[in-house]
Amino acid sequence: MSSLVTVERLRDGVALLTLRRPEKLNALTWDMMRSFLSSLEDLGRDESVRVVVLTGEGRGFCAGLDIGQDDGVGSRADVFSAYRGQETVAQLALTVRNLPQPVIAAVNGPASGGGMAITLASDIRICAPQARFNVAFVRIGLSGADAGVSHLLPRIVGLGMASELMLTGRQVLADEALRIGLANRVVPAEALLDEAASLAGQIAQNSPFGVFMTKQVLHRNVDAGSLEQAIELENRTQILASRTEDMPEALAAFKEKRSPNFKGR
Amino acid sequence: MSSLVTVERLRDGVALLTLRRPEKLNALTWDMMRSFLSSLEDLGRDESVRVVVLTGEGRGFCAGLDIGQDDGVGSRADVFSAYRGQETVAQLALTVRNLPQPVIAAVNGPASGGGMAITLASDIRICAPQARFNVAFVRIGLSGADAGVSHLLPRIVGLGMASELMLTGRQVLADEALRIGLANRVVPAEALLDEAASLAGQIAQNSPFGVFMTKQVLHRNVDAGSLEQAIELENRTQILASRTEDMPEALAAFKEKRSPNFKGR
Amino acid sequence: MSSLVTVERLRDGVALLTLRRPEKLNALTWDMMRSFLSSLEDLGRDESVRVVVLTGEGRGFCAGLDIGQDDGVGSRADVFSAYRGQETVAQLALTVRNLPQPVIAAVNGPASGGGMAITLASDIRICAPQARFNVAFVRIGLSGADAGVSHLLPRIVGLGMASELMLTGRQVLADEALRIGLANRVVPAEALLDEAASLAGQIAQNSPFGVFMTKQVLHRNVDAGSLEQAIELENRTQILASRTEDMPEALAAFKEKRSPNFKGR
Repeated sequence: MSSLVTVERLRDGVALLTLRRPEKLNALTWDMMRSFLSSLEDLGRDESVRVVVLTGEGRGFCAGLDIGQDDGVGSRADVFSAYRGQETVAQLALTVRNLPQPVIAAVNGPASGGGMAITLASDIRICAPQARFNVAFVRIGLSGADAGVSHLLPRIVGLGMASELMLTGRQVLADEALRIGLANRVVPAEALLDEAASLAGQIAQNSPFGVFMTKQVLHRNVDAGSLEQAIELENRTQILASRTEDMPEALAAFKEKRSPNFKGR
Repeated sequence: MSSLVTVERLRDGVALLTLRRPEKLNALTWDMMRSFLSSLEDLGRDESVRVVVLTGEGRGFCAGLDIGQDDGVGSRADVFSAYRGQETVAQLALTVRNLPQPVIAAVNGPASGGGMAITLASDIRICAPQARFNVAFVRIGLSGADAGVSHLLPRIVGLGMASELMLTGRQVLADEALRIGLANRVVPAEALLDEAASLAGQIAQNSPFGVFMTKQVLHRNVDAGSLEQAIELENRTQILASRTEDMPEALAAFKEKRSPNFKGR
Repeated sequence: MSSLVTVERLRDGVALLTLRRPEKLNALTWDMMRSFLSSLEDLGRDESVRVVVLTGEGRGFCAGLDIGQDDGVGSRADVFSAYRGQETVAQLALTVRNLPQPVIAAVNGPASGGGMAITLASDIRICAPQARFNVAFVRIGLSGADAGVSHLLPRIVGLGMASELMLTGRQVLADEALRIGLANRVVPAEALLDEAASLAGQIAQNSPFGVFMTKQVLHRNVDAGSLEQAIELENRTQILASRTEDMPEALAAFKEKRSPNFKGR
C-alpha cells in the first residue's frame, strides 16, 4: 500500500482509511487513486471490518483530482486515455458506494470535486466546522455532473439546492451543510474521529447481514419505480435475513438488553 | 371490529382510527393487524370519509410488530409462513399508502419499526413533542429496509439522513423530525388531535375527486422517469377532474369566497 | 413582444424576463402565455444570454392562469379545447425547465398555481420576504398535480411537505420556503434583483457548455434508474466538455486566478 493512503483500526470492527497528501489538501494523483481503490477492495473483502471511516490528513479532506498533474483533465490527451481517466475517478465513487460495509466520511476540511463526490458516495457524512464542499468540476470548464454528483446530490439535499451548488460551484460551509442535509452532524474537529467511531459502533451493534442488506436494498429502492416494487425486494430480503444464525441472536440480545454476539452467518 | 382498533368520527368527514393496546405501546399482534387492515378497507369504501387520521392510545403511537408473540419474526417458522407474516406487515403500509383518502398520522409517542413505516406511508405526519421514530428492524438482526421504509424514508428526509437512520436504528425525537422533514409540524400533545382535525378540514375544503387524484398522481410521479412523463399523467387527470360536477362548484365557491357544496361526482 | 411580458438585460450575459400585469398579480391570460413562451424560445436561441432571471412587476410574482377569463379552466369548453388549454400551461413549465440556460426565479410576491409551477421549473428560487407559494389548483376542484408540480415539488422539498402542500393548497411564506428547501435564499425585496444578478454572475463565470451540460445531465439523472446509469451519462458528457476550446481556458483562468475568456465552443 502506498504511504499516500493508509488503513488502520479505529476501534474494534472499524477501519480508518486516511488520505495522506496533506501539503496538497489530499488532491488525488493517479497512483494515489489506484492505492485508494485497492485499499477499498481489500476492506470490502475483510469480514472483520464492519464499518469504514474515510478522512484526510492535515487541513483538507480531499481536493479531488490533482489538476496540476501533467496527464490530468484538460490535457491534450487523446479521447481514449481521457475517457479512461474519467472512468477512474467515477470508479472511486462507485467503489465507495458499493462497498459491502457502511462508509462514514469524517470530513475534516475542504472536500472539492472528486473529494466531494467521495463524501456523497459515503453513506453518512459527519463534519468538523472546517469542512466545506464544492462541486469544483464546473469551475474548470466541465459539467458539474461528475463522479455520481448528479445522481447523489439531489437525492441528499433536494433538487433546488443541488441545482444551485452544481451550476455555481460555490462553497458550502459546515453549518449550511447541516441545514440542507448534506452533513448528518457537525462536531468539533478534535471530536471528529471519536464521533465517527461512536456512530460506527452503533451500526456494528446490528447484525452484519442486516446492515449489509440495509445498505444494498436502500440503494436499489432509492431508485425503485414504485413502492410496490420496493416492497417486493424488501420482503424477500427480510426472509433471507431471518434465516441467518445472527438473527435470533440479535433478537435475544435486544430482548435481554445485552450486547449481541454475532458470527456473521 | 376488534376493540384493539377503533374507528370514530373526529369531525364531519374525518375518521379517527386509534390503535388500542396501550400497555404494549400499541405493538401489533397478528389479530390486531387483520383488524387494522379491515378497518382501513372499510374506510376506503366509505364516501362520507374525506380524510383519515391515525393515532395511538396512551403513551405510544405504535411499537410495530409485537416481537413477544410466539409466531413473530425470528421464530423458527418455516419459510412459507415467515414470508406470509412478512407480507402482512408490508401490506399494512401499502394499504395506508393506497387508501383513496389522505391519511394524517397524529404521532403521539414512539413509532417504531412497522409503526414508523405506517407513519411514512401516511401522507402527512404531525407530532406531539413525545413522538419519536426508529427503524427498529435493523436492531433485531433484520435489514432496516422493511414495510416500504427503504422507498419512503429517502424520499421524505433525503438519502443522507435515511442512510443513518436505517443503518443505526437510532431514535429521532420530535424536534429533529421537524428539522429533517419527517414531521410536517410539532404541536403540544393536548392539541394534537385538534391540529389533525383542522388540517383534515383544510383538505376537505377541496373537492373529493381533486384530492383523490392529487394523492394518486403524486404517488405515481414521485417515481416518474421524467418530467415529461409526469406531465402526461397530470394533463389527462386534470381534464378528467374538470369534467366533474364538483369542479365548477369549487371554482364558484373560490371566487365567491364561500364554502363549496360538494356532491362527490 | 406583448407589453405584458418584457425582456431586458439585467447585466452582461443575464436576461431579465418580467411578467407585467401587476393589477392582476401577473395572472396569465392566453395571449400572455403565448408571449411568455415565445420570449423563452427567443432567449433559448440567444447565445449571448448565459442566465435568465424571471420576476413579476408590482406586488405579485405570478398568480397562475387567470381564472377570470371566459375560456379558462372550469368553463364548459369541449374536451379538446380544454385539453389544449391544459397543455399550454404545462408547456410553459416544460419550456422553462428545458431552456438551455439556467433560470433563476426572483420571487417578489405570491406565486400561485401555474405561477408556483414556473418557479419549480426554474433551476434556482430566490425570494423576497413577500414571496409566497401555493398549489392553487387543488383549491378550485382540480388535482394539485399540475404543470409538473407532482414531479418537481417532492424532488425539491421531499415527499412529506409536498403531500401537505398539494393536498391542502395552503400558503408557504418565505421563511418556511427557506426552511424546507423551496427557496434557495431570502433577501430584502430591494436587493432581490441584485442578488439574482450576482448569482447569475457566479454561474456565468463557468463555461457555457459546462453549465448547459450541468443542467441537462442533472435533469436526466435526478430520474436515473441507478447510480451506475447516471455515471455512464456523466462520463461521456465530461469527455465531450473536455474537447471544447473553453475547457482549457477555464482551467487556465482557474489556476491563474483570473476571469476566463469564453468563446462558447
